[in-house]
Amino acid sequence: MNKIKLQTMLKQFFNEDIGDGDLSSELLFTSSDKGSFTFYAKEAGIFCGAEIIQTGFKILDSSIEVTLLKRDGEKIEIGDEIAVIEGSLQSLLAGERVILNLVQRMSSIATNAYKAVELTKGTNAKICDTRKTIPGLRMLDKYAVRTGGAYNHRSGLYDCIMLKDNHISFAGSISRAVSDAKSKIGHTVKIEVEIESKEQLIEAIEAKADIIMFDNRSPEEIRNWLPFVPSSIITEASGGITFDNLKDYAKSGVEFISLGALTHSVKALDISALVQLKGEKINGYH
Amino acid sequence: MNKIKLQTMLKQFFNEDIGDGDLSSELLFTSSDKGSFTFYAKEAGIFCGAEIIQTGFKILDSSIEVTLLKRDGEKIEIGDEIAVIEGSLQSLLAGERVILNLVQRMSSIATNAYKAVELTKGTNAKICDTRKTIPGLRMLDKYAVRTGGAYNHRSGLYDCIMLKDNHISFAGSISRAVSDAKSKIGHTVKIEVEIESKEQLIEAIEAKADIIMFDNRSPEEIRNWLPFVPSSIITEASGGITFDNLKDYAKSGVEFISLGALTHSVKALDISALVQLKGEKINGYH
Amino acid sequence: MNKIKLQTMLKQFFNEDIGDGDLSSELLFTSSDKGSFTFYAKEAGIFCGAEIIQTGFKILDSSIEVTLLKRDGEKIEIGDEIAVIEGSLQSLLAGERVILNLVQRMSSIATNAYKAVELTKGTNAKICDTRKTIPGLRMLDKYAVRTGGAYNHRSGLYDCIMLKDNHISFAGSISRAVSDAKSKIGHTVKIEVEIESKEQLIEAIEAKADIIMFDNRSPEEIRNWLPFVPSSIITEASGGITFDNLKDYAKSGVEFISLGALTHSVKALDISALVQLKGEKINGYH
Amino acid sequence: MNKIKLQTMLKQFFNEDIGDGDLSSELLFTSSDKGSFTFYAKEAGIFCGAEIIQTGFKILDSSIEVTLLKRDGEKIEIGDEIAVIEGSLQSLLAGERVILNLVQRMSSIATNAYKAVELTKGTNAKICDTRKTIPGLRMLDKYAVRTGGAYNHRSGLYDCIMLKDNHISFAGSISRAVSDAKSKIGHTVKIEVEIESKEQLIEAIEAKADIIMFDNRSPEEIRNWLPFVPSSIITEASGGITFDNLKDYAKSGVEFISLGALTHSVKALDISALVQLKGEKINGYH
Amino acid sequence: MNKIKLQTMLKQFFNEDIGDGDLSSELLFTSSDKGSFTFYAKEAGIFCGAEIIQTGFKILDSSIEVTLLKRDGEKIEIGDEIAVIEGSLQSLLAGERVILNLVQRMSSIATNAYKAVELTKGTNAKICDTRKTIPGLRMLDKYAVRTGGAYNHRSGLYDCIMLKDNHISFAGSISRAVSDAKSKIGHTVKIEVEIESKEQLIEAIEAKADIIMFDNRSPEEIRNWLPFVPSSIITEASGGITFDNLKDYAKSGVEFISLGALTHSVKALDISALVQLKGEKINGYH
Amino acid sequence: MNKIKLQTMLKQFFNEDIGDGDLSSELLFTSSDKGSFTFYAKEAGIFCGAEIIQTGFKILDSSIEVTLLKRDGEKIEIGDEIAVIEGSLQSLLAGERVILNLVQRMSSIATNAYKAVELTKGTNAKICDTRKTIPGLRMLDKYAVRTGGAYNHRSGLYDCIMLKDNHISFAGSISRAVSDAKSKIGHTVKIEVEIESKEQLIEAIEAKADIIMFDNRSPEEIRNWLPFVPSSIITEASGGITFDNLKDYAKSGVEFISLGALTHSVKALDISALVQLKGEKINGYH
Repeated sequence: MNKIKLQTMLKQFFNEDIGDGDLSSELLFTSSDKGSFTFYAKEAGIFCGAEIIQTGFKILDSSIEVTLLKRDGEKIEIGDEIAVIEGSLQSLLAGERVILNLVQRMSSIATNAYKAVELTKGTNAKICDTRKTIPGLRMLDKYAVRTGGAYNHRSGLYDCIMLKDNHISFAGSISRAVSDAKSKIGHTVKIEVEIESKEQLIEAIEAKADIIMFDNRSPEEIRNWLPFVPSSIITEASGGITFDNLKDYAKSGVEFISLGALTHSVKALDISALVQLKGEKINGYH
Repeated sequence: MNKIKLQTMLKQFFNEDIGDGDLSSELLFTSSDKGSFTFYAKEAGIFCGAEIIQTGFKILDSSIEVTLLKRDGEKIEIGDEIAVIEGSLQSLLAGERVILNLVQRMSSIATNAYKAVELTKGTNAKICDTRKTIPGLRMLDKYAVRTGGAYNHRSGLYDCIMLKDNHISFAGSISRAVSDAKSKIGHTVKIEVEIESKEQLIEAIEAKADIIMFDNRSPEEIRNWLPFVPSSIITEASGGITFDNLKDYAKSGVEFISLGALTHSVKALDISALVQLKGEKINGYH
Repeated sequence: MNKIKLQTMLKQFFNEDIGDGDLSSELLFTSSDKGSFTFYAKEAGIFCGAEIIQTGFKILDSSIEVTLLKRDGEKIEIGDEIAVIEGSLQSLLAGERVILNLVQRMSSIATNAYKAVELTKGTNAKICDTRKTIPGLRMLDKYAVRTGGAYNHRSGLYDCIMLKDNHISFAGSISRAVSDAKSKIGHTVKIEVEIESKEQLIEAIEAKADIIMFDNRSPEEIRNWLPFVPSSIITEASGGITFDNLKDYAKSGVEFISLGALTHSVKALDISALVQLKGEKINGYH
Repeated sequence: MNKIKLQTMLKQFFNEDIGDGDLSSELLFTSSDKGSFTFYAKEAGIFCGAEIIQTGFKILDSSIEVTLLKRDGEKIEIGDEIAVIEGSLQSLLAGERVILNLVQRMSSIATNAYKAVELTKGTNAKICDTRKTIPGLRMLDKYAVRTGGAYNHRSGLYDCIMLKDNHISFAGSISRAVSDAKSKIGHTVKIEVEIESKEQLIEAIEAKADIIMFDNRSPEEIRNWLPFVPSSIITEASGGITFDNLKDYAKSGVEFISLGALTHSVKALDISALVQLKGEKINGYH
Repeated sequence: MNKIKLQTMLKQFFNEDIGDGDLSSELLFTSSDKGSFTFYAKEAGIFCGAEIIQTGFKILDSSIEVTLLKRDGEKIEIGDEIAVIEGSLQSLLAGERVILNLVQRMSSIATNAYKAVELTKGTNAKICDTRKTIPGLRMLDKYAVRTGGAYNHRSGLYDCIMLKDNHISFAGSISRAVSDAKSKIGHTVKIEVEIESKEQLIEAIEAKADIIMFDNRSPEEIRNWLPFVPSSIITEASGGITFDNLKDYAKSGVEFISLGALTHSVKALDISALVQLKGEKINGYH
Repeated sequence: MNKIKLQTMLKQFFNEDIGDGDLSSELLFTSSDKGSFTFYAKEAGIFCGAEIIQTGFKILDSSIEVTLLKRDGEKIEIGDEIAVIEGSLQSLLAGERVILNLVQRMSSIATNAYKAVELTKGTNAKICDTRKTIPGLRMLDKYAVRTGGAYNHRSGLYDCIMLKDNHISFAGSISRAVSDAKSKIGHTVKIEVEIESKEQLIEAIEAKADIIMFDNRSPEEIRNWLPFVPSSIITEASGGITFDNLKDYAKSGVEFISLGALTHSVKALDISALVQLKGEKINGYH
C-alpha cells in the first residue's frame, strides 16, 4: 500500500465529513479535554484496517496514541477489542465516523474473501477480485481482498490486457487480436482473453494467450474444456459465480475464480467505538 | 448537486482506473473507431445516475453522444434500456466500468430508499440516511437517497449539532449541553439530542432541543413516549432498525427514521452495458 | 475549525508568496542563521489568529518555536506583545507577510464583531455575519466573527434554505415556496424567508418558516411587526444596517442582526513584527 | 492574468460556497427554469472584474450568456448597468454571491488606486501596491491595482530582492548586503534597499542599488535627500502614507509611492444584482 | 495515453511558466491581436507530441486552431513543417515555450528509440525502456519510446515484480524469492528475476520466473547461456548497454534490451516556432 | 528553494512510481526489515540534490536516517560516497529510483554549469540558464544551475519582460515597444530586448532597455558592438552557443551568456545506490 497516497485519501475523506468544523465538539469540548475510544467487534469476521486507524488519527492529531490489539487478517469475535485510541476528544470525535466507515467496509471485504477462500479449500482454485470496486477506494478495496487471503486481478486498465468480445469482434478473430496485442505490448504485461465457446478456447490456446477466462461458463463446461489447456496458460472463471455455486466452480479444476461481489456488494461489518471521557474535570462541567 | 465538484470527482475516479492508459483499447482500436453502448437493467429497481452518465462520458470525450432513456427516480424493469451512448470506442471503454460502478451503487441506494418509503406508506414516518456513507462519495450517496424518495440527515459534522451520550456526560446533563450549545451557535443550525430513557426525553424537551432522537429504543417505548413531545420538536428513531422492523417503527408515530444500511451496506443493482461496433470497417481488421 | 483544511490553505498561501524561493533571504542568510520575531499591536482591538501563527510557522519549519502571549478573543492595546517566534531567519521571513496579512484581517474582523456586540449590549439582539466573505477565506472570516463574540449565519448555500424574492415569485407565493421546501428537505435544515411587507410577514408566519428576515426594513417597521411573530420563529434584520443605526435596530426587539460589512469591508488591524537577529555571528558578516 | 489559474481559483471559490449543492435553488427550481441577472452599480467608482463575470458563470454553466456593458477600468455611476447574465436560474444563483464578492472587492481596489493616481496628478509620482494582499487573491488584487491606473510592486518574495533592516544588519552594512546580493543573483532581478537615514541613503547609492525605498520618511526628508540620488536609481516612498498625506509625498519628487491600504483595507464597492425570472411558466408554479 | 491526466499535467506546466501572467505579451498585445506559429524541424528525427500541441493550445484558448502536418512516429527532415497554430498572439506566446520543451524532448526520445530499433534490425531483439524517466513525465516519456517503435518495460513499482539482488539475498535464494512472490501475487502480474551468474540463471529457470534479466552481462555470456533458457521464459539484457555495443547484444539472441539512456539522457531535438503576425493592424501600433 | 513546494513535488513523483504499492518489496519484506543505502559516484562531477535525498526519504518514512557526506556544489570523484540512508527496506526501495533520477539530473546540470563557468574563467562573462527546462522541474533545474556556479535568467513569463522580434514588429519599433512596456510595468521589473542588428542595438540603447540580448550574433559582432553600450545596460549573448564556441563568446566582453543546453539536453550523471541488508535475520529467510 502506498502510504503517501493513503494520507492524501484520508485527508480528503476527513475534509468531506468535517467541512469547516465539527460544530458539536468544538462547542462542547476544549482542545485539552481528553478521552479514549475502544474499537470493538459487534460481529465476527476478519479484521482489516490497522493502517487506517493508525494513520488516520495521526493525521488529525499527532498527539493521539493508538494501540492496535488486532493485526490485519486476524479473526475477530463478537466483543473482541480491536484498538484503543487515546487523546483529545475533539480529534477523536472528528475522526470516528470516517475511520469506522472505512474499517467496517474493509473488514467486511476481508471477511468475505476469507469465506470464499475457505469454501474452496481442498481445490486448486484461488479467489480473486475484479475492477468492480468503489471509485476512489480501489487501493483499499484490493488491499482488503488480499488481507482475506484472496488475490488481486488487474489494478486497472493500465496493467494487464483483457481482450473481451468487443475487442475480438473488432479485430476479426481471437488470433488476430492476440497477435496484434503481442506485437505492440511490452514483455512485462500479460494478455488475458475471454472465451465463451470451445472454438474460442482452442483459438485462444493457439494464440498463446497468457490467461484464458471462461466467461459465464458452467462448472461442467469448464471441467470438460480444461484438459485442452496446456499448463503454461492460466485459467480463470468469471461471471455468475456466487457463494452458492463457488464450490462447484472450484472443483472444476480452474485456477482462478473472480468474484465481483467481493467489492461491489459489501455489507458493513459491525465494528463500534466505545467512548470514555477522562480528565482533570471532576464536577462534570467546564 | 454541485456540478463542479462532480466533475472533479469523476476525473479522479477515471484516473484511478485508467492510470497511464487503457492498454487493451489503445492497442486494438484507433481513435476513429466508433461504437455504441446500451446500458440496460438486469434487475428491477429505481434508476439513479443520469448526471453521472451524461457528465462522465463528456469528460472523457466531448464528442460522445449520450441519450438518456430513463430519468433519475424512474422505475426500471429487467431488460429496460436506460441510456444509449455513442462515440469513440476507446472513450466508451475507458469510461464503462467506472460509470457502471457508480450507477449500480446509486441505483441500489435509490431502490432501497424507495423500498423503505413504500414500507412506511400510510404512516407519517419519513425515511432518512446517516453519515455512514462511503468516504469520498457522500454527495452521490445522499443524492441517491433523495432520488429514492427518502430524506437526508445532516451532511457532515459541520451543518447540524448532534449531542450524543459523550457530549452529554461531559457537559453534565442534557440541559447544560443544550443550553451551552444554544448560547454559542448561530440561529441557522439545529440542535439534535440523542436520548435513551424517559428521564432524558423530558430533559431534552425542557431544554427545547430542535430534534430528539430515540436511540436504540423499541417501537413500543417510542409510542409511549411520543405524547410527551410537543409538536414544535421533531422526533427521530435510530439504531437497530432494519427492513424487518421498519414498519413497526413507522407505526409508532415517530416522524423520521434513519437507516445506516441505506448507504453502508449496498448490493450493486445489476445494470450492464451492451456494446455495438460501428464503422467504415468492412473486413473486420484495421 | 478544520485543521487539515487550515494546513492546506496555509500551504497554498505560502506558495503564492514564496514561489520558487525567497530571493532576499536565501541569498543573505544560511539556513543556520537564527533570529526571533515579536508580533505586537500598533492598534487596539481584539486579537484573532493564534492558530494561524502556530500552525503557519510550523508548516514552514517544524523547528520554529512559537510562544503565544495572547489568546484568541483577548483584548490587545497598542504596544502589547502577541507572540514571540524563534528559529531560522529564512523560515521566519518566509512566513512573516502571509501570516501577518491573515492575522491583521482576522483581528480586525473580531474587533468589529466585538464592537457591534458592545453596541447592542442591553438588548436581546445578537450580531451575525453573512456570505459576503472573501472567497477562499470563509472558514477564517467566520471564525473571526465568532472570536469577536458574534454569531455565524449559514456557512454557504448548502446548510440552510434562504427563500428570497426570486424564489418566492417563482413559486408564486411564500406559502407555496415554504411548503414546497418543507416537503423536500430533511429535518436538520432550517428554512429562512425574506420578507419586505406585513402581508409577506403574515404569510411567512402562517407557512411556519423557521426564521423570518426583515429585508431592508426600518427599526420602526420591525418593532411594529414583531408582536405578530410567535416565539417559535426566530427573527432577523438585514440590509442597510451600519454601526450608526445598529443600536436602533437592536432596540427594535429583533433577535439577530446580520452585518455584511463585518467581512466584506475590513481595514487591516495594525499588527507588526519586530525582528531580532541572534547567533554565533559576532562581526556581522557570514 | 493567467486564465488557467483563474479558472482553478474560481472553481475553488464556488466549491467553498456551494458545498454539496444549493439547497434553496435545487428545491425550488428545475434546471430548465430560466432567468436573468443585471449587475448594476449602487455606488460610483471604477469597474473591475469583467473576466471574473465572464469566466465565472461559464464555469458554472457553459450555456449562460454574459453581456458585458462596462470594460475593466471604466467609470461607473450609481445606477449604471455593468453586465447582463442570462441562463438557468440554478446556475445564476449558484454563482451570484461569489462573483459579486470578487467584483465588489476588485472594483473597490481599482477605485482607490484610481483616486490615488488622481490625487498625484501633476507630479511625477506613480502609485504602487505591496504584498499586503489577501492570501489567495494576489493575482486578482494586483490586477485590480493596475486596472485603476496604478502599478504593481513585486509579486512575491521570488521576483525582486528587498533588503530590509534585518538583512542589512545581518550582513553588517548596506554595501556588503548589496554586493553580496549582486554577486549571487541573476541579471534579470532588481535589488531594492530600504533606507531610514541619509547615511544609509549615501551607502545605498554607492552600492548601486536599483531601487531605494525611503522607509517611513517624511516628505521633507525625501525632498531634501532626492538631489543626492542619481537618475539611474529609482526612488520609492513607503510607510505611513495615507490619502491625506499622499499629495505631499507626491510633490516631494519621489518616483513611486507604495500604499499597503490599497489591498489590505478594502471596503467593498456596492454592486448588486437584479434578478428577473423568465420562462414558459405562466401561473407561477412549477 | 490518459487524456484527463494529460490535461492536468499541461495545466500544471503552463502555470509553472506563466505564473500570474505573461508580462511581455499582456503589455504589448490585446487579446484580439492575432497571429500564427509554424513549428518546423531544425534537425532530422522522428516527430512525437501531436497530442501535446493539440491539447496544449486548446487548454490555453479554445479558439486557437491547430493544423498538424506530421503524425506521431513520422520522420521529419530539416525544414519540415510540423504544425501550424493560429489564434490570439497572447495565447500563442503563453504556450510556445512549454509545448516546445515537451515536443523537443519527446521527439528526441522517439528518435533515439527509432535509432536503437534500426540498429537491431535483422535480429530478434526488441528495445525497451526503464524507470529512469524524468519524474512527473513518465507517461509522456514512455509514450515517446513507443512512438519510436520500441517497447515499454514496467510502468512503475506497481505493475510487475522485479526481484533484484537485494530481494534475493534477503529471501536467501532465487528459488525462495520466486516461490514466495508466486504464492502471494495475482495471476495478472509477471515476475522478473535479475541474474548475474550461470548458477543464478539455472536457479531462475527452475523457479519458473516469467522473465530473466541478464544484469551487466557481456553479449558472449548471454549467447552462451541462452540455450539453457526454455522458450516459455522471456530474456532481457540490461546494464552497460550503449548505442556502441547495442548490435552485439542484439545478435546474442536475447529478446529484450533495456536502455536507460533512452529517457535519462536526452538531448532536445531542435524544433522551433516561426511567428507570423496577422491582423487589421496596418500602421504597426495598437 | 521553496520547501513546501518541494514536498508537494516529491509526493507527486513518488506516487507516479509507486502507484498503489511496490509489489516486489511488499511481498518479500516486512515493514520491520531494515537495511541501508550508500549513494556513490560512478562518474566525476558536481553534486547537487542534498535536499532531495533528505526531504525525499523523510516523506516516505520519517524514521529513515539520512547522513549526507557531500554538500551541494561539492566536487565528487568516481567512488566517492555521497550519502548513507538507513531504515526500513520497503521505504528505501520505494524511494531509490525517483530520488536517483532527480539527483542524477541535478548533478549533471550542476556539473555542466560548473564546466561552463570554468571555461569562461578569466573573462567577465557569467553563465546563465533559460526557460528551456523540463516542465514541472523548473525550480530544481534552476537550483542546479546555481549550484554549479552559474546564474538564473528569468523564472518564467511573469518576472521579467523580454521583447522579442514578434513583440517588436507588432509594436512597430523597438523604441515604441520599450516605451510602451515602460509606461505600463512596475519599477521592480526589468525590460530585456533582443536585437539582431546594429540598428536595433542603437535603438534599444536609446530606448534605455535594462538588458540587451545579442540574438544569434557572432562573437565578433558582439565585440564590435559592445563599445556602443553604456555601462548602465547589461549585455547578454544567446542562441547557437555551445561548449565549443563558449570561450569565444566569453572573450567578446559580453556580461551574460545564456545556454539552453544546460537544462534542455542533460545526460544523467552516473550516481548509484549500494544496498546493504541488516537485521535480526540470520538464516536468510523471514
